[in-house]
This record gives sequence, structure tokens and C-alpha cells, in this order.
Amino acid sequence: MSKNYGPEYVRAIAPYQAGKPISEVAREFGLQEENIVKLASNENPFGVPESAQKAMAAAAAELGRYPDANAFDLKTALSKRYDVPMDWITLGNGSNDILEIAAHAFVERGQSVVYSQYSFAVYALATQGIGARHIVVPAKNHGHDLDAMAAAIEADTKLVFLANPNNPTGTFVTGAEIEAFLQKVPANVVVVLDEAYNEFLKKEDQYESAAWVKKYPNLLVSRTFSKAYGLAGLRVGFALAQPEVTDLMNRIRQPFNVNSLAQAAAIAALNDKEFLAKSAANNTAGYEQFVEAFKDLGLEYVPSYGNFVLVRVGSDDAAGARINLALLKQGVIVRPVGNYGLPQWLRISIGLPQENAVLITALRKALAEDRA
Amino acid sequence: MSKNYGPEYVRAIAPYQAGKPISEVAREFGLQEENIVKLASNENPFGVPESAQKAMAAAAAELGRYPDANAFDLKTALSKRYDVPMDWITLGNGSNDILEIAAHAFVERGQSVVYSQYSFAVYALATQGIGARHIVVPAKNHGHDLDAMAAAIEADTKLVFLANPNNPTGTFVTGAEIEAFLQKVPANVVVVLDEAYNEFLKKEDQYESAAWVKKYPNLLVSRTFSKAYGLAGLRVGFALAQPEVTDLMNRIRQPFNVNSLAQAAAIAALNDKEFLAKSAANNTAGYEQFVEAFKDLGLEYVPSYGNFVLVRVGSDDAAGARINLALLKQGVIVRPVGNYGLPQWLRISIGLPQENAVLITALRKALAEDRA
Repeated sequence: MSKNYGPEYVRAIAPYQAGKPISEVAREFGLQEENIVKLASNENPFGVPESAQKAMAAAAAELGRYPDANAFDLKTALSKRYDVPMDWITLGNGSNDILEIAAHAFVERGQSVVYSQYSFAVYALATQGIGARHIVVPAKNHGHDLDAMAAAIEADTKLVFLANPNNPTGTFVTGAEIEAFLQKVPANVVVVLDEAYNEFLKKEDQYESAAWVKKYPNLLVSRTFSKAYGLAGLRVGFALAQPEVTDLMNRIRQPFNVNSLAQAAAIAALNDKEFLAKSAANNTAGYEQFVEAFKDLGLEYVPSYGNFVLVRVGSDDAAGARINLALLKQGVIVRPVGNYGLPQWLRISIGLPQENAVLITALRKALAEDRA
Repeated sequence: MSKNYGPEYVRAIAPYQAGKPISEVAREFGLQEENIVKLASNENPFGVPESAQKAMAAAAAELGRYPDANAFDLKTALSKRYDVPMDWITLGNGSNDILEIAAHAFVERGQSVVYSQYSFAVYALATQGIGARHIVVPAKNHGHDLDAMAAAIEADTKLVFLANPNNPTGTFVTGAEIEAFLQKVPANVVVVLDEAYNEFLKKEDQYESAAWVKKYPNLLVSRTFSKAYGLAGLRVGFALAQPEVTDLMNRIRQPFNVNSLAQAAAIAALNDKEFLAKSAANNTAGYEQFVEAFKDLGLEYVPSYGNFVLVRVGSDDAAGARINLALLKQGVIVRPVGNYGLPQWLRISIGLPQENAVLITALRKALAEDRA
């Protein structure tokens, strides 16, 4: 590690562990790419919606030009959908970018950021990357303990990350609980409500976070097109917040952070209700498929509100890594979560029915061999 | 502006002024998009190379997946082209991202960054965005004064931005001058050599910066696919540096910062020597077309080594804005550079011969009316 350059807090960063791409697993394990099933990155198994593909084709002619830095067309569509003015919107190169921008825009070195144990790795990375202080609140049943998070806010806290549903655990807090939390947070602390998995919520669990933005000047709602909308490879996310917060976000945002095809595809995907409904239905069915299998295999799992399930594959702290390797050898990629402090667990994304079936068969085999 | 949130240095940022997209000018001035000529953002007038379009089509099937965070294929291609190991490469969401990452990776709040007057606006933005101190070295003949820049480095200087050719002025320093500069810079100061316009250099001006990276552990060479390679809308740039520097860059880099299509297109473009040659030839011819016209119009210009020319359109400090507006009304978009401290000048990108001709006609008319 470097000793000659950079702040100490940068040198201390442990880089993000991305899910292995199919091509990399094929190289490493001598497998054919077409035989590999990837259920590792909470992607949409249907891929890019056809509507978005068409929109991209139409936008391709102008790709030699810089993207529209103000994303007029996409902001117009988002503004209409969420009933907020255009200057309440920040666009990100994926919602990862939104999270990083928020840390840079609102927190100075040495000030503190609050987030939950077992929440998205980027909260810790974004906090570390600016030399801020981490206040990590112990989880309750693998999810957010909102009372404890509110109580954990200190005088120098400038930002709270709150994920709902939470990744990698799939846990959920109700809209009423979040509103109660927002009422407790001091007005000068920005709350980033990360709703990357919002579109998978069942009707009875949905709540109106976009409307809360009008009520809470310190709330920033973060969304992504990488999950339900199927645009992970294109990189586009967005945030909704009042202009005072949005203005600072846009001072930190790189002007051309969202590429032209992503802007065009996102507009189409946003309006493709059929694709979203199909994705949600597949997710519900796949979740049931997994839950049934986990019960059959006698595996503990965390009830999930997202497009993935956290499942405990052993009772020793090498179990996750061991079963993960056994799955990789069978051409199935899932996510080990030892880096989240969950070494006995794996996070498995919900795929198409046949992909889920391949995972279940491979997992059954891996567990049998592991116990043998 | 916000008073409730964010560090003071963030609130003080003046956001980047992007070139107006064609669609925006059409809306504002009531023009038809197809009648507008945009020579504002130093884009490649040929657009995306066909080779890159084909590569994108092949990559489109997997767009529902996250990009390869390690960009194996693109790094393999860059490694081969520049004869450096893969762990000497950082990828960026455009080279704008490289510049921002470098500021975050190497400089703490309060430390200083050295760059030249009249150099790329993002150097100031990246410096301001981390609360660092700006050391702006007066330009010499609109270009970098390398002796003065070396002398300006202070004990707390951690980063130098050096552009060659320089944007927005088009000036150039020779390879020998840069090497002499590198030898003077203290070993703990990272030098970002921003070569966004490198591919437009004539053979006799070229120098081997990729080879210098092996010799100078504190040198980071930044390149982009947005200019000569024609991929501005896709967002991809890269940096070459020794592993100690690259490792820190990759700790700050967002893991999925470069989208999948950009990765695929960049590999194709990198190997498309014909497209690059065609672009360079068009640029040479267009430059001559402009120079001839400026001489004819009696306009001062700065000899340019890039794909744009800085031209002085009046002798009062409202001239740039005035002529810019007159050009916009005629459907020609160029770049006013008042924000660079050059209010009497305009920066005009070199386009196709017919686009250049439209600009020249419109400029002639604007100047005549302005003088009338």
C-alpha cells in the first residue's frame, strides 16, 4: 500500500468487492460462459426492457456528442412521474454515484455519518473516502434499528444512510416507521433514503417517499434504474430532494456523469409499466421458489422484500466462502457476504425460474458434500 | 444558496458551465435541431466510429448486468497498446472522472493543488470540491509556464494538473519541456498530465508519455475517448500510472463507473486506426480553414494543437458574450470563455468542412453587425 501519496483515510479504504462477472468465472474455473448462472448482483433476469433498447437505438446517432449535462428529457419524465419540479432532481451514474455525491456534498472530514450494521457497503466506502467518522448502529433482526439510529446521531453528524428494503439482508421498515424516524432527525442532518429495491415492494408495503420530500427539507430519496428497471450495465440513478439539498448535490456531481444512452433508456424504462409488472411477478414467484427450497434444505433465511435472499449455509465462519466456492465450481455465481460481517451466509439474487432451479440443485449438492 | 447543509467549500462551488446541447438551443431560440451547427464541446464531428457501434451492438445483450468493475477486456487492450501492466490502469467515467478521482485520492482539505491560469475548468472544480487550496500559476502566451509552475509548488502541494495540449487555449509544451518539469517536481507530488487532445498532435510533436510513467512514479497520464475517438456520449477515459498511485485511484473510483457499452466501444475505437487518421486529417484541414478565415476577418487567434481554436472576437469584455449570442441566434453553438477569464474570446471546435463554413459565414455576419 502507498505510503508516499494520499491522505491516510484514503490509504485505509478496502475497495468494494464486486460480484464476479460471468466472463471472469469462466476464465477462472475453465467453464463455458453459456453454462454459468449468475445470481450475484441483484440484477433483473429479464435484462434491458425492449422499450429501452428501442430508445437507445434512436439515441445512438448522437453518441459522439457529450450527454446533456442537465438531462432535460429525463428530468422532465421524472418530474412528471414524481410530481416534483426539475430542480429537485439529481442524476447519478447509478445510485452509487448519488450516495458518493451526498457524502462529498454534506460531510467534511472528521464529521460523522450514521448507518446500520449489515447495510450497503458503499455507505462505509463513501464515508471512509472523505475521511469522515463512521457511526455504525447495530442491526435488529438483520435490519435497521431506527430508534437506535436516531439516538446515535451526534452533534457533528451531517448524514444518515437508510436503506429500505435493505441490501444485503432484504429487511424492510414500514413507511410509518420511517416517517417517525424523520421527525426525530435534526433539521441540519441530511437523510439519504436509499430505495434501490423499492419497485419490488408489494402494494400493501408501498409508501410515498417522493411526497415526503416536500415535507422534509433534509430528506433525499435515492433510486436506481439498475434493479427492477434492468439497466445495470448502463448506469443511471437519481435523487429527489428540495432545491437547497439538490443544489449542493449538483455542485459536486460531474457534469456529464450520466451517459446519453442511459438517459434515453431510463425514460423508456420509467414508462414501461408492463416490464416492471413482469419483473415484480417473476420476483414474487422466484422468492417462493427459494423459500420452499431453503425450508426443504433446513436453511435459515432472512425474509426478503428485495430481489434477493440472504440464506445461512452453515454454522461456522468459513461456511459462506466454502459453499460459495462449491457453487462457483458448478458454474453458479452468488454473493458471499463475509465482508458484511455475515460469513455464514450467502446472498442469492432471484433469477428466472430455471436459473433458480439450477441454483437450488447446485446448493443442495454443495451442502451435501460439505456435510459429508 | 444553502446555509443549512454542507461544508463551506462545497457551497462556494460555481458549477461547471456545459456547452448548450443542440436540443436546448433549439428550444430557447425557436430553431430546428437539424439546422443547428454545434462547435462547442470539442467533439469529433464524425461521431462514433462504425467499429465501436458494432462492438456496442454485440455487448447490448448483457446490459441488464452490471459492468465488469475490473474492465478486464478494456484493460487488456490498453495494457497491450501502452505496454504497461493491467494494474497500472485506472478507468474513468470520462477523463473528468479521472481528474476528480485524483483530487480525492491525493489531496486533503487545506492542502494545495497547482494548475495554470486558462486551463480546464475541472481542475478548479475538483480542487474546490475537496476544500483544497488553489495555486493558479499565471499563463505565458495563454499556455503553461512550466518554470513558474515548478516554482509555485509549496510544501503542502500534493497534486499538479498539467494539460497538453491545453484546453481552452490549444497551447502546447514540448515533450522535452514536460520531462524537464517532471524532474523538478518533488517525488511526493502527483502530476496529472491531462492529454485529452493528444491524438490530434502532429507526428513531429508527439512524445512518449506512457513510457515516462515507468520512469516517474508520481506521474499519472490521463486520456479520454471523448475527443479523437468520438465516444463523448458514452463516457470513458483512463489513466496510466505506477501501481502505488493507481491503487489509491482505484480505492476512490466507484466500482461500476464505466458502463458496459463504453467499455466495449472503447476497445473497438482504440484499434480503429483508420478512424483516428480520418479524424486527424479532418482536423488539420478544418484548422487551416479557420485560420484562413480569422486572418481574413482580422481576428487574433491562439495557434492550436487541439481540435478547437481560441479566437478573439472583440476588444471589450462583453464581446465574447455578445458574439456568442449573435451566433446562437443563427443556430451556431460555440463556447464563450468568460468563465475562464477570457471574455473577449470564443472557443470554436473544428467540425466538418461544411460546418466550419457555416460558422465562418455566421461569424462574419455577427462581427459586421456588431461593428455596425
